[in-house]
Amino acid sequence: MPQTLWRNAAVATLQSAPDNPYGLLPAHDVLTENGRITAIAPTGTLHAKRVRELHGALLTPSLIDCHTHLVFGGSRAAEWERRQNGVSYQQISAEGGGINHTVRATRATGEDELYRLAAQRLTTLLADGVGLVEIKSGYGLDLDSEAKMLRVAQRIKASGAAEVSATLLAAHAVPPEYAGRGDDYLDVVIDKIMPELWAQGLFECVDVFCETVGFTAAQTEKLFQAARALNIPVKGHTEQLSLQGGSALVARYGGWSADHIEYLDEAGVAAMARAGTVAVLLPGAYYFLRETQKPPVSLLREYRVPMAVATDFNPGTGPFASLRLAMNMACVQFGLTPLEAWQGVTVHAARALRREHDFGTLAAGKPAHFNIWDTDTPVDIVYEPFRPLLRERVLHGNIQAA
Amino acid sequence: MPQTLWRNAAVATLQSAPDNPYGLLPAHDVLTENGRITAIAPTGTLHAKRVRELHGALLTPSLIDCHTHLVFGGSRAAEWERRQNGVSYQQISAEGGGINHTVRATRATGEDELYRLAAQRLTTLLADGVGLVEIKSGYGLDLDSEAKMLRVAQRIKASGAAEVSATLLAAHAVPPEYAGRGDDYLDVVIDKIMPELWAQGLFECVDVFCETVGFTAAQTEKLFQAARALNIPVKGHTEQLSLQGGSALVARYGGWSADHIEYLDEAGVAAMARAGTVAVLLPGAYYFLRETQKPPVSLLREYRVPMAVATDFNPGTGPFASLRLAMNMACVQFGLTPLEAWQGVTVHAARALRREHDFGTLAAGKPAHFNIWDTDTPVDIVYEPFRPLLRERVLHGNIQAA
Ligand SMILES: [Zn+2]
Ligand SMILES: [Zn+2]
Repeated sequence: MPQTLWRNAAVATLQSAPDNPYGLLPAHDVLTENGRITAIAPTGTLHAKRVRELHGALLTPSLIDCHTHLVFGGSRAAEWERRQNGVSYQQISAEGGGINHTVRATRATGEDELYRLAAQRLTTLLADGVGLVEIKSGYGLDLDSEAKMLRVAQRIKASGAAEVSATLLAAHAVPPEYAGRGDDYLDVVIDKIMPELWAQGLFECVDVFCETVGFTAAQTEKLFQAARALNIPVKGHTEQLSLQGGSALVARYGGWSADHIEYLDEAGVAAMARAGTVAVLLPGAYYFLRETQKPPVSLLREYRVPMAVATDFNPGTGPFASLRLAMNMACVQFGLTPLEAWQGVTVHAARALRREHDFGTLAAGKPAHFNIWDTDTPVDIVYEPFRPLLRERVLHGNIQAA
Repeated sequence: MPQTLWRNAAVATLQSAPDNPYGLLPAHDVLTENGRITAIAPTGTLHAKRVRELHGALLTPSLIDCHTHLVFGGSRAAEWERRQNGVSYQQISAEGGGINHTVRATRATGEDELYRLAAQRLTTLLADGVGLVEIKSGYGLDLDSEAKMLRVAQRIKASGAAEVSATLLAAHAVPPEYAGRGDDYLDVVIDKIMPELWAQGLFECVDVFCETVGFTAAQTEKLFQAARALNIPVKGHTEQLSLQGGSALVARYGGWSADHIEYLDEAGVAAMARAGTVAVLLPGAYYFLRETQKPPVSLLREYRVPMAVATDFNPGTGPFASLRLAMNMACVQFGLTPLEAWQGVTVHAARALRREHDFGTLAAGKPAHFNIWDTDTPVDIVYEPFRPLLRERVLHGNIQAA
């Protein structure tokens, strides 16, 4: 690919300096070649044959959605309507609703159809400027179905629409056929699903739902020990509904991120800070479940734990495929600053997926993954989540189709 | 225009029956001619030369956003960022922020530019399937600037992108040049702005912000009396932050709607029920302002006050140009059922704008304003607000450009 000069942008590198937290470089050019950034310099100092004039538009790193459940079959919309009409959760659960509904539908849906559905859901994230998306399994809950979900994630990666970080979440719930035998199912995850799918190269990290309605801290630790033995990185859905100690466990095993963390305590925050574990805030699920306990943002700041922000897009508790809305909700609901929301979908989200080498910030030498926006002010992207500001989405130096 | 047969739809007329609240007619056809619906009947019973095959897609009335402030200059995003960064409201207000910022910017912005901005904002509402939008003045606060804003609303109407209901909100705030002299400014509204712009045919209804930070109940009544003398319908921003009695006043003057109404009491609900005044719920502002007092939904149900749902899109407290998100928020935050959310943007929103004759429900004889959606289930539109389900938006029988 020839050199391209992206000329006269307001470049926000997201490389924070105390006096310039967005790393804003007004009137700068970005030079790209062979899919990489080769230079960022004041307008007028760089030259290339191919020039794209940006007229002062904002140029930022690609956004990263570091927590999604994008692959699933079926719909829980009708179930939600019944809930809103006053039918109890117990009643719906007794009728096979909730996550079991999604597990049945996902198992029954073919891989091609799952791919079609996931690719469709991805389009709205792409419209927000997402260039890297994490995708979890967790609605298969058996070897073949978890493999099927992860192959769909790999196909999305292969499609080139976005970079993908695939996560094994076989320990999402105890499947119906193991009801009351969670330990037995966990053994299947540890002895079979995790090692076999890891050997197939289908995922990069293993996740768990550590909660009263999921897996205990002891079960979580057993899973993490098995992962460590295979050198598999870990992360967790932790402290969403109660304090179980899952985040501290993630930290103890050097995990990538602890996600949700509404009920996280100071000891857990301190453990995460020591371990370099990222706190992933999921304000969409908080909104949708009408939660009132907020994540400990002040403590996370105090201990300098990096905060990421993600959609948690999923069929039951987070039907919002908009990362910009998640940024807004993190500010409105949790009190994040717009800068923190921006860092949460760039530099800190890259850290959450251990992709700092190719995502999160803009710098010479890194791949040319960036967005060009019809504004010169980063806050606009957060303040008005529906204003169509994305002008171009660039991956590996190439402008992506809208 | 020739006859067109919209063949094999799941038609949701929104004409509620006890056993069929959405008025769902599966496998029905809609016949249109000269911009009107001429028949709705089971598939196979109607015929026309021109046939559009819908394959079971959902066909609903056009959506209605019955409360917006779509026309304004400037941006309050930077001010919001400062608020999130810890600067006090008092500080920002002392520096000329808040509504005064928007008034200055709107006065300083030319009509063509205001039109361009408003039309751009409208596009995201159109993408949600909106066919009728209410647009208020209220950032001009002098004769010429209010006239300019209302001319922009009329230009949007003339563009054909959507039908428009224009509202005079000169009594939105006391403009800076009348600081401390609210009664004097109200006299200008009553003696000059309202009668002159009414004579010019620039609006259909007069609105007021009845609140401690706006106009008192006594001032509101004075405005309503003057409106009645000119046969101008009224509505109000009432009971948003405190109980002022504005909603009961709107009812007493036979007003179209009382909007916000978080602090409305039972007497006010009863008055609205007697008067046929619609309750317009604005969950986006409730969300954005982190309010905790919810509108009295149970009382509104008990007294059978029709509830509409709108975006309240505005520069300071409601930067969400998504009516589908407003529907979702009305359910999640206020406990509405998906059916109530649907009625809130169709039949009840039409009532709020006194446009039942051409909007709100589907029936033979009404104009052919409808949406065709890529689903067969109304709840899907509410549950996943970002899923791109709108296939076609039809106004006066014509498919509108996306
Ligand atoms: Zn999750
Ligand atoms: Zn308003």
